[in-house]
Amino acid sequence: MDKTLQGYIDKLNSLNFKDMYEGDFFLTWEKSDDEIEALFTVADALRYMRENNISTKIFESGLGISIFRDNSTRTRFSFASACNLLGLEVQDLDEKKSQIAHGETVRETANMISFMADVIGIRDDMYIGKGNKYQHDVVDAVTEGYKDGVLEQKPTLVNLQCDIDHPTQCLADMLHIIHEFGGVENLKGKKVAMTWAYSPSYGKPLSVPQGVAGLFTRFGMDVVLAHPEGYDIMPEVEEVAKANAEKNGGSFTKTNSMEEAFKDADIVYPKSWAPFAAMEKRTDLYGKGDFDGIDKLEQELLAQNAKHKDWCCTEEMMAKTKDGKALYLHCLPADINNVSCEDGEVADTVFDRYRVPLYKQASFKPYIIAAMIVLAKCKNPQETLKKLEERGTVRRFQ
Amino acid sequence: MDKTLQGYIDKLNSLNFKDMYEGDFFLTWEKSDDEIEALFTVADALRYMRENNISTKIFESGLGISIFRDNSTRTRFSFASACNLLGLEVQDLDEKKSQIAHGETVRETANMISFMADVIGIRDDMYIGKGNKYQHDVVDAVTEGYKDGVLEQKPTLVNLQCDIDHPTQCLADMLHIIHEFGGVENLKGKKVAMTWAYSPSYGKPLSVPQGVAGLFTRFGMDVVLAHPEGYDIMPEVEEVAKANAEKNGGSFTKTNSMEEAFKDADIVYPKSWAPFAAMEKRTDLYGKGDFDGIDKLEQELLAQNAKHKDWCCTEEMMAKTKDGKALYLHCLPADINNVSCEDGEVADTVFDRYRVPLYKQASFKPYIIAAMIVLAKCKNPQETLKKLEERGTVRRFQ
Amino acid sequence: MDKTLQGYIDKLNSLNFKDMYEGDFFLTWEKSDDEIEALFTVADALRYMRENNISTKIFESGLGISIFRDNSTRTRFSFASACNLLGLEVQDLDEKKSQIAHGETVRETANMISFMADVIGIRDDMYIGKGNKYQHDVVDAVTEGYKDGVLEQKPTLVNLQCDIDHPTQCLADMLHIIHEFGGVENLKGKKVAMTWAYSPSYGKPLSVPQGVAGLFTRFGMDVVLAHPEGYDIMPEVEEVAKANAEKNGGSFTKTNSMEEAFKDADIVYPKSWAPFAAMEKRTDLYGKGDFDGIDKLEQELLAQNAKHKDWCCTEEMMAKTKDGKALYLHCLPADINNVSCEDGEVADTVFDRYRVPLYKQASFKPYIIAAMIVLAKCKNPQETLKKLEERGTVRRFQ
Repeated sequence: MDKTLQGYIDKLNSLNFKDMYEGDFFLTWEKSDDEIEALFTVADALRYMRENNISTKIFESGLGISIFRDNSTRTRFSFASACNLLGLEVQDLDEKKSQIAHGETVRETANMISFMADVIGIRDDMYIGKGNKYQHDVVDAVTEGYKDGVLEQKPTLVNLQCDIDHPTQCLADMLHIIHEFGGVENLKGKKVAMTWAYSPSYGKPLSVPQGVAGLFTRFGMDVVLAHPEGYDIMPEVEEVAKANAEKNGGSFTKTNSMEEAFKDADIVYPKSWAPFAAMEKRTDLYGKGDFDGIDKLEQELLAQNAKHKDWCCTEEMMAKTKDGKALYLHCLPADINNVSCEDGEVADTVFDRYRVPLYKQASFKPYIIAAMIVLAKCKNPQETLKKLEERGTVRRFQ
Repeated sequence: MDKTLQGYIDKLNSLNFKDMYEGDFFLTWEKSDDEIEALFTVADALRYMRENNISTKIFESGLGISIFRDNSTRTRFSFASACNLLGLEVQDLDEKKSQIAHGETVRETANMISFMADVIGIRDDMYIGKGNKYQHDVVDAVTEGYKDGVLEQKPTLVNLQCDIDHPTQCLADMLHIIHEFGGVENLKGKKVAMTWAYSPSYGKPLSVPQGVAGLFTRFGMDVVLAHPEGYDIMPEVEEVAKANAEKNGGSFTKTNSMEEAFKDADIVYPKSWAPFAAMEKRTDLYGKGDFDGIDKLEQELLAQNAKHKDWCCTEEMMAKTKDGKALYLHCLPADINNVSCEDGEVADTVFDRYRVPLYKQASFKPYIIAAMIVLAKCKNPQETLKKLEERGTVRRFQ
Repeated sequence: MDKTLQGYIDKLNSLNFKDMYEGDFFLTWEKSDDEIEALFTVADALRYMRENNISTKIFESGLGISIFRDNSTRTRFSFASACNLLGLEVQDLDEKKSQIAHGETVRETANMISFMADVIGIRDDMYIGKGNKYQHDVVDAVTEGYKDGVLEQKPTLVNLQCDIDHPTQCLADMLHIIHEFGGVENLKGKKVAMTWAYSPSYGKPLSVPQGVAGLFTRFGMDVVLAHPEGYDIMPEVEEVAKANAEKNGGSFTKTNSMEEAFKDADIVYPKSWAPFAAMEKRTDLYGKGDFDGIDKLEQELLAQNAKHKDWCCTEEMMAKTKDGKALYLHCLPADINNVSCEDGEVADTVFDRYRVPLYKQASFKPYIIAAMIVLAKCKNPQETLKKLEERGTVRRFQ
């Protein structure tokens, strides 16, 4: 592809993504291959424009609302960066400062905050069976509000992480891989090891391994999911991964051996997560308000984790990968041996060696989010990009 | 009125509102009829422009400062939306993050935060005799700061709720009524029931019933204020309401019967509030630091409330209104039976039936706030609106 | 100097400040005299443009990130105002909402938040030996991130207060003095009393007296640092002050007598601070987690402070200054007798008399910060200012 704006526009002209207009982004596997490719193309185009000091401000005013039900640094800043790049001002719905506990419904709150909202970004990954549902409830509410004439626009939803998928992360990961391997056409037959790794902390979300299983299997790669017994991900997502592999000519396999997964791998993504069954149980316990039960479960899980300290991305493990030089991925922050903990997900020397590519991996997220917004808000993004170039407003005036 | 921008401009040309320029907005009854009508007209014009994708950004830079002394979702977002619509960036004075406790005076803080502030929005409704006074202290401080050459502009105050009035709410309510009834000329002789309703919570502000009494009586309507014995509002506001009714040809009456108020009413606004006398007592107790006294008062008030659970906007009550179809209003969030509480202000079936008009009612608030700012900041708003249309910058670039 | 934009541009043309481009601002004494003068000139030019309703928005998009490790009102609003004036949106890294405790390094966080950051403002003044170092760590991280291709721009650091210097405060103070005395050329031979003053609170930072010693000695003035025995500032900064005085023809002297310092002073800056040695001890105790030791130290320091209640800027003390009319400075908020405390830094009558100049003093800070950003981001600020004037976009559209 020609690395000029016209190159990106030409690429977009060859793709069908018209259903993304006025749409939302929940799960990657709800999007067609063309739609995913359009997203990568717009993300690259926006980055190209920023690097060439061309303003991509498509909004003169408008709000991008964020709802974070968990602490966050990088996702918060990625969302803020994406909104800012397009001209939207971020307004955070801080539930502690709000009156929501006052007996208000999701439907009501969603409308009340959306009178001038073009985007709503939500991170809600803590409870299995809840996060994605909450995002749908919000979208249903604002869709109805728009139809009823309450809202002047339907804000588009950006899933900033739910219990099922972490699309902004996994799409950024994949765009990073595409750039590292010199194009999507070079990914066929590459081996990816999405593996569990030990962490001294408890209850990490499943959305990254699930998102990787659901997305990476679309590119003809051999995706291996590895974890100790009992650390399964959602079965529905495994089904998605299998179907993807079948359709796209790669494979999706499972193993309980980290070594097996790492052997000759081109890409490794070792990362801790909690067992799906345990997370379901925790959701039930919260529902019942059984806090003693939750404490007990936490202790059990930490003890269970501790049996698998050998699941660590050490130098020895990296040596098993293709030429000992697999691309190491992590969504950050990682649990690094001797840095953030005694035993963790990765050896400090491995992490240090991959620091620059890891940071580059993260750098795609703001553009992925911005591309989701552009595709939902511009009827003809090719024309919009062209007009932005012609408008020629500089981002940074000299 | 002609529903084009020129129609709104023509309307404004017929009104005298020159004193609003560089002014502030404390209480609706401090404004003339022409000024209130100008406010509604500018609010409608701004909405028209947004709906027609015309940018109304009158500020290239500048801050809109918010001070919330109570939790808030909808007012916070309304203020943020209004500021954003005009090009101002919201900066919240979070008193917990600030050094104000450090021994700083209101006068000093007000100046320190206002060097580049075009607007200050304050919500301070908790203590009788304090909220409105605090807003005046802030305005006095920045007015002096401007005269002394400390500030380059005098920020305009927007009262986002005080102990006396809730002008952004009540003006949004009234603009909603005007739209629902097809014009201000259709309001003469309509009956409005502003009634108390039971809530299991305690100490709700009086600013809404007071604001309604002080504003709705200006439109030739028959305003009935209904509440159980002992739930009086501020006597000064009742005097305002009486004078308004006398001047404008409607009426302002009081009753201790919800039924009587609802009978043949065109509009009903059932909502809980705390008795004025009790709120005065609470303010005194806080002043003395008598927290045991406050707890005792709270228990007394909850017990007193509980005697009036029959003050609920039920289907039976709604059936008594004009054709059983009065317009139901609420400032939200409401205490809804079987939804947010067992017994509350309104039956769930009633609330559900009015959900769309209720959300529309709320949708006017950002425009009311924006109109307050425009009228305070533009010497000739007609000309400004015209120039904005001619400038033709789109809000959302396609 | 001619008070038109061209006057400021002509001034800049006579100065050498090319090293400020793409640089950072840590300590005033790391900058040349020309650079300091360029900073004042750009600050004045920006103020001139705002007062003449000329937009100085040089960024169409971009973030200004703030990191406040201590509560703050005025610095927070000054930074927000400066960013807004130039077109940057402030995004606060609230460490409580972030995942930093999660084991993340400064290097990682700095990169993760900076993908679209043009500026990072940091206030970190609490621990001796830590604050300035932390700022350098952040700058090293983003400089490396930029070189490695992780970041598309190197954000510029604005030191919003560290353990060593408070450059935005002291430069604002000095610009205020220059305006009050009618030009920098009138400062030679003026006497400045930077004196300790009693406060009932504990552990105030040393960055203001240190910043004053390091900056004011560059203007040919006679700077007297006065404090009770044991309240020394960092010896390294005293060395800077002495060298400055020698080079610039003024003097830097020390005394343990407030009277002596005030005698015939043209400018007085009485302000409380903690002894350097005690602050070093506190840093050690924190490092060891010795909270009992910290409590004990606090009690000792309060007792030590209490011996010096006579160090107060009273009317009697002011009467000793030049014609009894020295310019009184304070960084605010002050501990005012009978207002914020019984005994404090200044008599209420003195403070009241100087209220307007004090507020004006504070008003320069947003422009100082904005000037730091302009000088770091514009290769040829003269040309940029000229182009902004020619562009002629109004800040407030009428």
